[in-house]
Amino acid sequence: MSSSMVKGYAAESVGKALDLIAYELPKVKEHDVRVSVTHCGLCYTDIHAIDDYYGITDFPFVPGHEIVGHISEVGAAVTGFKVGDRVGIGWQGRSCGKCEWCKRDEEQLCVSIVDDGTWVPYGGFATSVVVDGRFAYKLPNGMPSEVAAVLMCGGISVYSPLRKHEWKGVKDIGVVGLGGLGHLAIMFAHAMGYNTTVLSSSKAKKDHAIALGADHFISFDDKESLDGIEFGLDLVLCTAHGKIPWVKVIDTLKKRGILVLVGFADVDFNSTDFVAHEILMEGSFIGNRAMMKEMLQFADKYKITPMIELMPMSRINEAIQRLKDNKARYRVVLVNDIPQRT
Amino acid sequence: MSSSMVKGYAAESVGKALDLIAYELPKVKEHDVRVSVTHCGLCYTDIHAIDDYYGITDFPFVPGHEIVGHISEVGAAVTGFKVGDRVGIGWQGRSCGKCEWCKRDEEQLCVSIVDDGTWVPYGGFATSVVVDGRFAYKLPNGMPSEVAAVLMCGGISVYSPLRKHEWKGVKDIGVVGLGGLGHLAIMFAHAMGYNTTVLSSSKAKKDHAIALGADHFISFDDKESLDGIEFGLDLVLCTAHGKIPWVKVIDTLKKRGILVLVGFADVDFNSTDFVAHEILMEGSFIGNRAMMKEMLQFADKYKITPMIELMPMSRINEAIQRLKDNKARYRVVLVNDIPQRT
Repeated sequence: MSSSMVKGYAAESVGKALDLIAYELPKVKEHDVRVSVTHCGLCYTDIHAIDDYYGITDFPFVPGHEIVGHISEVGAAVTGFKVGDRVGIGWQGRSCGKCEWCKRDEEQLCVSIVDDGTWVPYGGFATSVVVDGRFAYKLPNGMPSEVAAVLMCGGISVYSPLRKHEWKGVKDIGVVGLGGLGHLAIMFAHAMGYNTTVLSSSKAKKDHAIALGADHFISFDDKESLDGIEFGLDLVLCTAHGKIPWVKVIDTLKKRGILVLVGFADVDFNSTDFVAHEILMEGSFIGNRAMMKEMLQFADKYKITPMIELMPMSRINEAIQRLKDNKARYRVVLVNDIPQRT
Repeated sequence: MSSSMVKGYAAESVGKALDLIAYELPKVKEHDVRVSVTHCGLCYTDIHAIDDYYGITDFPFVPGHEIVGHISEVGAAVTGFKVGDRVGIGWQGRSCGKCEWCKRDEEQLCVSIVDDGTWVPYGGFATSVVVDGRFAYKLPNGMPSEVAAVLMCGGISVYSPLRKHEWKGVKDIGVVGLGGLGHLAIMFAHAMGYNTTVLSSSKAKKDHAIALGADHFISFDDKESLDGIEFGLDLVLCTAHGKIPWVKVIDTLKKRGILVLVGFADVDFNSTDFVAHEILMEGSFIGNRAMMKEMLQFADKYKITPMIELMPMSRINEAIQRLKDNKARYRVVLVNDIPQRT
């Protein structure tokens, strides 16, 4: 058994810059795998967790949940993996296997997902991680590791609701926000054959949106275009953070239209039109294991190619600042350059 | 044909006290009925409309959409009504009959419901109203007129979502708010066999809630009781206005739980738990004609008895003030005392 000591970038207290620290990784239990990290994407929820925005962060905290690496150890009961296999790991590393949601193969809703404290004690900005082997996913051969990394959280978060509603026959959709999740949503929606309108507060993003596969682009300031789309969309996928003109978004939807939230946005609107138009708003959280596997195959088949900025992991604090400054186009993936001796 | 001149209580401009004015009522067209008003309930949306909160009020504006009265004139093409029949009329007085929603018998979502300008040009705080005969409902014989009035908007607004979700097998529900709509919701939920928890910011309402049929009562300040119900409810019906502790409400719901909005509340929450628990929030607006008829039969069968304060219509401005001061227990119905000469 390899040593359980690893190194990783940790916030030692709320909002602190990350420092490289050494710590003990849990032993590989019979259903677990240990993965030597090569790449890890940076997601805005990492920053929220560092800032303890959710009120549940245990410090020191190593963020990172868009992980790609190679299997370095396989638990006794794990089948289908051997040392050296390239895998991806997303936000979810375990599930209880016993609750109603786990039994329904909706393990992303596992009732112990946060409470049992064993989830992601240390994240992917580290030399290695240990997770339940059911939550490590073999990657398609031709898929670059940085692409796979971005798909493990950003990708699945938008793919899952888009796919579910495509199955239900939804055609005309909007995507609010063109950032990490938004740009993935546009590419997936295009590949699925949706008629996609990007709604953004930044006019400058129009060319990008169209290049990524959007059929239409409307700026929230462009009243005339907004009026033209009023009550026209079946579904809007909201991927944005920050200030969202909610009533304008709601008024792009048909009656009984669907507003899907995938980011952790601050929701703030008067509900008159929401109620009178019988709008449905649904939260959508990552995706289950079946959806994750399907998403990887789909992304491989349609050559989904996110826009990625590659940086060495040693520049992680700079990467965090780029995200905070809304400068990343559109996702930063950090390549592991921590000396692997430990 | 009777004279088309009537008298009614109108706000002449935004937020103004109501004055009795005379005005011309539309002629009774072939599908219309004219109804001589005996009772009209006061709903908080009347006050919102007087204050032009929705930005769509045409002044002078006569509010009132919980109407009971007697048919005084029947259009040539109307069947099933004769002069003298007692009927109730709710918020909706017309529909286009041509749009996708009307064709699906979901006329409460008619795409022309507000835009065509003919909806409720003058409301029920008046001697008479004219509506499409399809939106006048015969009342059960034994039902007091003030009870029927309250059911026409407050009743249908809570009955419709409760009934739809009862059909889907929902059992454990919460009701937020114990006012006009909330107290009706408790009574209907009890009659439908739901296990009902009332959630309120006012501890003083506990005895009322239980007397109305609630199984449990929890104050938002009572952390221990809230913790006990955490992630326990299938559905929460939000009937409250004003400040609502949204995250506390969301955290009473099971994963994939349903939050139904029936009032026009200001929605304001951070969506972390909403997303991570894949909560569904749905707007529910009055109900269709079939639901209205069913609701009246149901209320009659189970002797639903709202708590009503009766006042003469001439005291309408005082009644409005009682609602604004949150003093009404729980619904005010105004009895017509306008001289019927016009």
